[in-house]
Amino acid sequence: MNSSRCAACKHLRRRCPSDCIFAPYFPSNNPRRFAYVHKIFGASNVGKILQDLPVSYRGEAANTLCYEAYCRIKDPVYGCAGIVDQLNEQLKVAEYQLATIKAAITTTLQPSYLLDQSLPM
Amino acid sequence: MNSSRCAACKHLRRRCPSDCIFAPYFPSNNPRRFAYVHKIFGASNVGKILQDLPVSYRGEAANTLCYEAYCRIKDPVYGCAGIVDQLNEQLKVAEYQLATIKAAITTTLQPSYLLDQSLPM
Repeated sequence: MNSSRCAACKHLRRRCPSDCIFAPYFPSNNPRRFAYVHKIFGASNVGKILQDLPVSYRGEAANTLCYEAYCRIKDPVYGCAGIVDQLNEQLKVAEYQLATIKAAITTTLQPSYLLDQSLPM
Repeated sequence: MNSSRCAACKHLRRRCPSDCIFAPYFPSNNPRRFAYVHKIFGASNVGKILQDLPVSYRGEAANTLCYEAYCRIKDPVYGCAGIVDQLNEQLKVAEYQLATIKAAITTTLQPSYLLDQSLPM
């Protein structure tokens, strides 16, 4: 048993083995990080997801799981999918504005101006 | 016991009570929908999230949980957070193009033109 257990093993009140799947990504000084993923995904599912990945990807996976868990705790109805919806809406507005301005420029300005300015058409 | 169990109760091989928390959102004709959320969140966590919400929000919550679970199965490293990153990048590009074009127009065109055309400045 490690003298300093990781946040996951502390939370689960169990021994922290030397090859603990959680320890590198859930340090004891950030207990909330594990509490989030435990509440939303469950320790067992998080462990399985990490275990199934090559070691080099596990850090990113732990980070994105924390992000998603945090989003779901903050917004239990829409979670991270709500952020996707908002961004899709913002993107639609920006692309519409862009298309409107490009169309206005194309029908108004001389082609030589567009070439000179190297506008992102 | 219902003669037709919902997808969750079938998957979990248990009785489907008349007040089953899963039944309205995980119909038996779409077993994959429950399999996704079960694999990523676990039945217990999904049940808890739904139970804690007013009935009118549970359908949306089930849909967004399915979406997130599907994203995580498709991309175990980034999941739904990967979609958020991609959309943020696309939005940044669109907003940069918009700002570039607006700046070019502002320094080039007459103010009267901008007013006449009602460009989205």
